[in-house]
Amino acid sequence: MKYQISDQELDRRVGHMRAHMEQQNLEGLVVFGATRTFYLSGFHHLATERPVVLVVPLRGELALLVPHLEEENIPVRNPNIKEMKVYREYPGLKHPMVYLAELLGDKGLAESRLGVDSSGWGGGMGYRGPDLSEVVPKATLVNVRDVIDDMRAVKSAEEIELIRLSAMFGNVTHGFLQDHIEPGAAEVDVAQRASRDGTAFMIKALPEDWEPYGRSEGAHASFTSGPKTAFNHRRAGGRRLKPGDVILTYAGAEVGGYTSELERTLMIEPLTDDHRKYFDLEVQAQDVAFDAIRPGARMCDVEKAVNAFLEENGLYDLTRTHIGHAIGIEGHEGPFLDLGDQTEIQVGFCLTVEPCLFLPGFAGFRHSDTVVVTEDGIDMITYYPRDIESLTIPA
Amino acid sequence: MKYQISDQELDRRVGHMRAHMEQQNLEGLVVFGATRTFYLSGFHHLATERPVVLVVPLRGELALLVPHLEEENIPVRNPNIKEMKVYREYPGLKHPMVYLAELLGDKGLAESRLGVDSSGWGGGMGYRGPDLSEVVPKATLVNVRDVIDDMRAVKSAEEIELIRLSAMFGNVTHGFLQDHIEPGAAEVDVAQRASRDGTAFMIKALPEDWEPYGRSEGAHASFTSGPKTAFNHRRAGGRRLKPGDVILTYAGAEVGGYTSELERTLMIEPLTDDHRKYFDLEVQAQDVAFDAIRPGARMCDVEKAVNAFLEENGLYDLTRTHIGHAIGIEGHEGPFLDLGDQTEIQVGFCLTVEPCLFLPGFAGFRHSDTVVVTEDGIDMITYYPRDIESLTIPA
Repeated sequence: MKYQISDQELDRRVGHMRAHMEQQNLEGLVVFGATRTFYLSGFHHLATERPVVLVVPLRGELALLVPHLEEENIPVRNPNIKEMKVYREYPGLKHPMVYLAELLGDKGLAESRLGVDSSGWGGGMGYRGPDLSEVVPKATLVNVRDVIDDMRAVKSAEEIELIRLSAMFGNVTHGFLQDHIEPGAAEVDVAQRASRDGTAFMIKALPEDWEPYGRSEGAHASFTSGPKTAFNHRRAGGRRLKPGDVILTYAGAEVGGYTSELERTLMIEPLTDDHRKYFDLEVQAQDVAFDAIRPGARMCDVEKAVNAFLEENGLYDLTRTHIGHAIGIEGHEGPFLDLGDQTEIQVGFCLTVEPCLFLPGFAGFRHSDTVVVTEDGIDMITYYPRDIESLTIPA
Repeated sequence: MKYQISDQELDRRVGHMRAHMEQQNLEGLVVFGATRTFYLSGFHHLATERPVVLVVPLRGELALLVPHLEEENIPVRNPNIKEMKVYREYPGLKHPMVYLAELLGDKGLAESRLGVDSSGWGGGMGYRGPDLSEVVPKATLVNVRDVIDDMRAVKSAEEIELIRLSAMFGNVTHGFLQDHIEPGAAEVDVAQRASRDGTAFMIKALPEDWEPYGRSEGAHASFTSGPKTAFNHRRAGGRRLKPGDVILTYAGAEVGGYTSELERTLMIEPLTDDHRKYFDLEVQAQDVAFDAIRPGARMCDVEKAVNAFLEENGLYDLTRTHIGHAIGIEGHEGPFLDLGDQTEIQVGFCLTVEPCLFLPGFAGFRHSDTVVVTEDGIDMITYYPRDIESLTIPA
């Protein structure tokens, strides 16, 4: 196990895109999105102000536009990429987009019909520059972003294996997180202890030359606690844990560029009837969602099924979000388990399942599991206990 | 000290933009960039597939387009924002960009001359949607991204105070990092121990309701070691430290949405003549850069000065990057200490200064310090020791 996608699979992905290109009379692709470049070439980078752009001609070698500082990484990490166009720096005396135009000229593509996933480098981090159409004005650009992303939605056996490993490390890390929770401890201190312990486990489990791709650097745990749990997108901070707290957790790890999502509702004793009631209803809502996911159903059907359950129980006003999303290279990917998403569910979709009940002033309740769609329904990828006994912490 | 930008300063920023709008006959701004929305409104979010868009009318209240899940955060965290347009979810039965068009209609701006920072929501994470021009076809859109970003480049006293606090926590965390380095330890384990210890210090230093904005959740340390240090953008992983290793570090922390950058070249004994030689030359190159930064000089002048020093010493081929970048809300911001950047240096610019010498097969050498430009030159914001005695680790 090399903990990375094989060259054979990368070839299969490029082959899929080339079949589409042939059909659409496209002579090349120009890929700006960092995750799409990783998906098609195996070259991972964190998008900054320095553009990295993948060029896929209909035939022949892939080529990468890279800054000088990435040049030496490629033979070490991606020896399958044989062609590079290297620019000195951003902004540099000659703009990286001018180098891109030269690269397209070198490949005979400057006046061609080209598929693109974006109008130019998105960047952020101070990037300023022209759109692709300004530097190759004679080319005809056709947006093929959704063709790439639709392919990404169906995970291969290799991808599922990496996501399963990610979930195993997430499970270990969540175990440490639960061990470290106790009244008086500060949220972010507990989270970082768990991250460190989970990462120490990964170091022992993986070969010494293991090196993560992303910003997370190993296992990562986080959570919010108390009344903060009734709000989305809050962060672990200085708050000290208290008896009676509800705790909304996350644990995961990146393996070979892939991730998983495990989230649990933990509760510190003493529990009230309301703790038990909403915990139980949230678990039931998640079960309704699991049952609704099967090949041939549509993504929106899953939210419809959960909403019907919530409405029957007078709970609809307590929910805040749709039911989940695809996951893989990015922590959120399309499609979505959402009323507005008509996508037909296919074998190989990898999805998070996470209905929520949020009670302002009290707490939020949500488990999130990662599942893969099979011929018969779903296979659970995350496997941490979901029941109230396992998730209650003595005070 | 509230560890956040004051409402008075937010008003000043909006006032600056409104003066520009008046001059350019713009009746409103539509801001898609998450860091620009934070800069102008104080509302922080992590950009996902769910658009968050700030609308700034020439007169009257700011308004925010937000998903339902952010709705309850605003009165708690940003009570200065009085107007919201809330959509249920992405993608939802009605697309968020349709809600944005309605919000612009409500504000009387759907057919106006509007400043924008982008053609639409950038998103990633599975986002698909129309450009702004498609949902308000009668509006006239003018790109004002650089007007906002040029204002961001000159830091205020409040911003510099937050960046100084970030540097203090970075200094503490780097101290722990150096304490934990020893032969046999794995890179990522040492980095996570230091992150945790630095964060524990932050918890003790800050009030209990402290809650970071970003993904980093407290202090963050990282490094690479050995031959990996001769490559940019590598990650801490399973590699065990060895005698004679060069170690390239990073330590920082987010405070009130602002960050700093502290990087050092550490070396584990025994040191060779080459260790000492390149360490010393790299420190000299950084001194050349410090001396070249002053108001009225141009950003490119600093790289020119360093390159002249490197060429005199026959070292130019060992460098990989320009000399540094602005820093503040984002870890990299414009402008850049780069040959291609003609921007005149102004009092209040906050910059990293980080010339590098990279020797493939041996090691990389780089200190990075964060400085603020003053009337007389620079004021060092980071203050960790830079000398070889302080940065050598006994084997």
